[in-house]
Amino acid sequence: MSNVERHPYLWGNLETPGHLPDAAKDALAALGATPPAPPVPVPDATLPVTELPEAVTSALRTALGSEHVSTEHDTRVGHTRGFSTPDLVKLRSGDASDAPDAVVHPGSHDEVVHVLDICSEHRVAVVPYSGGTSVVGGLAPERGSFAGVVALDTNRLDQLVSVDDVSRTAVLQTGTRGVTAERLLAERGYTLGHFPQSYEMATIGGYAAARSAGQSSAGYGRFDEMVEGLTVATPRGTITLGTAPQSAAGPDLRQLVLGSEGAFGVITSVTVRIHPAPQQRVFEGWKFDSFADGAVALRALAQDGPLPTVLRLSDEVETAVNLSDPDAALGSGESGGCLVVTGYEGTDAQVARTREGASAVLRKLGGVCQGEQPGEAWRTGRFRGPYLRDSLFDSGALVETLETATYWANLDTLKTAVTDAVQAALNDQGSPNLVMCHISHVYESGASLYFTVVTKQLDDPVAQWAKAKAAANAAIRDCGATISHHHGVGTDHREALALELGPIAVDVLRAVKSSVDPAGILNPGVLIG
Amino acid sequence: MSNVERHPYLWGNLETPGHLPDAAKDALAALGATPPAPPVPVPDATLPVTELPEAVTSALRTALGSEHVSTEHDTRVGHTRGFSTPDLVKLRSGDASDAPDAVVHPGSHDEVVHVLDICSEHRVAVVPYSGGTSVVGGLAPERGSFAGVVALDTNRLDQLVSVDDVSRTAVLQTGTRGVTAERLLAERGYTLGHFPQSYEMATIGGYAAARSAGQSSAGYGRFDEMVEGLTVATPRGTITLGTAPQSAAGPDLRQLVLGSEGAFGVITSVTVRIHPAPQQRVFEGWKFDSFADGAVALRALAQDGPLPTVLRLSDEVETAVNLSDPDAALGSGESGGCLVVTGYEGTDAQVARTREGASAVLRKLGGVCQGEQPGEAWRTGRFRGPYLRDSLFDSGALVETLETATYWANLDTLKTAVTDAVQAALNDQGSPNLVMCHISHVYESGASLYFTVVTKQLDDPVAQWAKAKAAANAAIRDCGATISHHHGVGTDHREALALELGPIAVDVLRAVKSSVDPAGILNPGVLIG
Repeated sequence: MSNVERHPYLWGNLETPGHLPDAAKDALAALGATPPAPPVPVPDATLPVTELPEAVTSALRTALGSEHVSTEHDTRVGHTRGFSTPDLVKLRSGDASDAPDAVVHPGSHDEVVHVLDICSEHRVAVVPYSGGTSVVGGLAPERGSFAGVVALDTNRLDQLVSVDDVSRTAVLQTGTRGVTAERLLAERGYTLGHFPQSYEMATIGGYAAARSAGQSSAGYGRFDEMVEGLTVATPRGTITLGTAPQSAAGPDLRQLVLGSEGAFGVITSVTVRIHPAPQQRVFEGWKFDSFADGAVALRALAQDGPLPTVLRLSDEVETAVNLSDPDAALGSGESGGCLVVTGYEGTDAQVARTREGASAVLRKLGGVCQGEQPGEAWRTGRFRGPYLRDSLFDSGALVETLETATYWANLDTLKTAVTDAVQAALNDQGSPNLVMCHISHVYESGASLYFTVVTKQLDDPVAQWAKAKAAANAAIRDCGATISHHHGVGTDHREALALELGPIAVDVLRAVKSSVDPAGILNPGVLIG
Repeated sequence: MSNVERHPYLWGNLETPGHLPDAAKDALAALGATPPAPPVPVPDATLPVTELPEAVTSALRTALGSEHVSTEHDTRVGHTRGFSTPDLVKLRSGDASDAPDAVVHPGSHDEVVHVLDICSEHRVAVVPYSGGTSVVGGLAPERGSFAGVVALDTNRLDQLVSVDDVSRTAVLQTGTRGVTAERLLAERGYTLGHFPQSYEMATIGGYAAARSAGQSSAGYGRFDEMVEGLTVATPRGTITLGTAPQSAAGPDLRQLVLGSEGAFGVITSVTVRIHPAPQQRVFEGWKFDSFADGAVALRALAQDGPLPTVLRLSDEVETAVNLSDPDAALGSGESGGCLVVTGYEGTDAQVARTREGASAVLRKLGGVCQGEQPGEAWRTGRFRGPYLRDSLFDSGALVETLETATYWANLDTLKTAVTDAVQAALNDQGSPNLVMCHISHVYESGASLYFTVVTKQLDDPVAQWAKAKAAANAAIRDCGATISHHHGVGTDHREALALELGPIAVDVLRAVKSSVDPAGILNPGVLIG
């Protein structure tokens, strides 16, 4: 995937679609899933009956060049919403009612500032758009009383600007996709080390704006931990942050931009830490008797080390299903057991030292090494989930994910509460389901929980999922956990965020927005109301 | 030191004053220093001719109990300003013109909220006061048109509230001094691992509010990295932050409170990460031919590991002077060379592994191990600097420190520029001087620089230092570095902060303040104007 436009509702590189393994087909049959109606062709999708004021279109064309301002049907459809399952369901049904009126492609930071100026002046909402991979409604603006909606696509801002070999930092433009950033850095002998499942589609600016966390977060950290500096275009002008690795010069405003999801400004470039490309990469599988046992082992590594580069634990259900690669499932047909995947990257010496130390901890706490095969199978399939979702949808299944995080002492309670809540909400609707869970990000004090839900599509899959999601949100809230570990807020989690933060902190976010975006044009309705 | 009140201008535990080593006396003689006039006794210090409105005093007494509201002369003098050298010079001369009108000691979070309510209603400025150790004017409020100034002393909030053994976190009240926190945690088998030079005096809330960094930051992290959660009293009510170790639920507002220096609210408790008390602690000295060589070695450890718990590098001048313990100086009389101190804490196995790995790196990059003696000497003397400053002042020297941070590629340029600027500014005034520097905090991408300046006192030491400090600030700014790595902003760095952030970001800080503190009563003039 280079910076081509995404398909409106199919994931990633369409030359490598997802193929359903036999085990998945069996599971679907058990759920009673039957294929839905075929999707409405993109040219037939229904756009909102809206038009930008001519003065705006004209000003944008003058600022960017006509070829970088589009009001074409397909382009608008292609910039409609993100990649949550409800988003895809809506587009498959031909509903493009959240489409922007125009899509602009600025070619520089100054052009981004210029677009914001024009849109502020005319009260036109601006949706910063990069990979288009939001799964929380981060690209579904509230049109309200705005004179129009423009998607600001960052795809032309996709360069590696500079590398500092001494400080080991690089400046990347916002629209650089993860896979492109890795390629550009590899040419200089480096890696960024950020591998979220959206890696093929999502971009540097999106990672920053939504606080992405990648599969190698144990080794390389979350994306927000990799960021040294940010350049941000706001309707009031440019903010440049990052004068030192750490500072006591007031609050860390980088952390206010990270997670702001386009509501405070458009991130146009990011200075990130980089690492020498690893000499060696090894992935292994370990088996534990139970999720609880596996979680104790992950906690031990997170708290006392040594920490692998990748560290994840699937619960019993996920281990048994292992949709992404059933051949790698632990002793297929065998009941029980939880798979831990460990990955090690670095110099040969670093890998050897960490692998030896971590293996000793895992073994001591009851883990049984399964060798490299399950680890390699995970590595090979790790970006395939979204492709599979498309195939599963065509077969009549509804697949969606949700995630949260909490402290270790609260982890079991949270996992049980969310699982029970989702299952009850789906059972109540008569939709048989599987709820799987894994830990994919660990910290000294806690961990993330990532749930994958597979169920039979009902007639209204959007309403069907909304009930399950509401139940999950309530369970997360009741447990005092966070509404999102790495998916973000968007419009879907806005109310949950308000409950999590409380009214005074929400007012702080509103005050920040009003300060940098007095007309409120930036991603209205995202993050805060 | 338990939670006794500090002496107005003498540091720490007065039973262990600083004794000047012979080497220091020789150095002072070379500078031509002669003892200044003796300090004005505290009872003779001049307070501002101010009085709180009776309605305020009365409301505060009703809220807290009369015994927790003081307008006594000595108490007011004892809460005047912080511990920068200019602060001490002013108090020694009897100038307590920045004293609060009253000092209140709330005993609970709710009482803090109540105090803020009363002071908001009556437009009385509130200075959150804990260790009183600010060296950047963080306790010198701008009285402006406020009806009075109250110091809110957190000394009664000094409890370890709870420990979570599974998640390895603890909740500490804001006024708990570092030394007290370590004692309370040690009783439970833990350490916090935060050891700034102000350790005997400064508190948990102060560490958080000013983004403190301790001497073991390489191993345990900066204080802002240790914080999991915060409870903050604001004039609008309570904000509680921290639902998970990390989250994508919007911007990380913890990082907006950290570094807010009392301008956004009063932090009343902090949830911190804790660690098992180390089985072993080892400190060593290493010698490098030059600061540049030593910096290369520190960078290698920071970027590729393994990282000791303590890692610092003194430049040639600081190594030669080694005021805090001249007996430990490397081959005294020997010219050249720079001291690196390494410290290792953890289990026996962790210490052995890290020490072996780090020693190999240091040796490979030209370091010569000096054994444990210089390391132990540093450890023993590491909290003695402020005591020595008092003794040196009595001998006619002026000692002050300043610090900054930057990226590795910029470090040498910054060090030279600041050193030259300070020396020129002092030489211009005819005050012979020594400018020493060390690196005490390292990151993958950069490091801090900490400068200690010793010069002969002139007739007006405050004006004398102001010129040197202004020159240093300009050099830091010109180099694109941060105005403070861990001292903070206060009033002294307010203008420099504004230059560092730019006007739009400063407006963001103002907007946040207006949102939580509509009357602007919290630490007026600190952080932002």
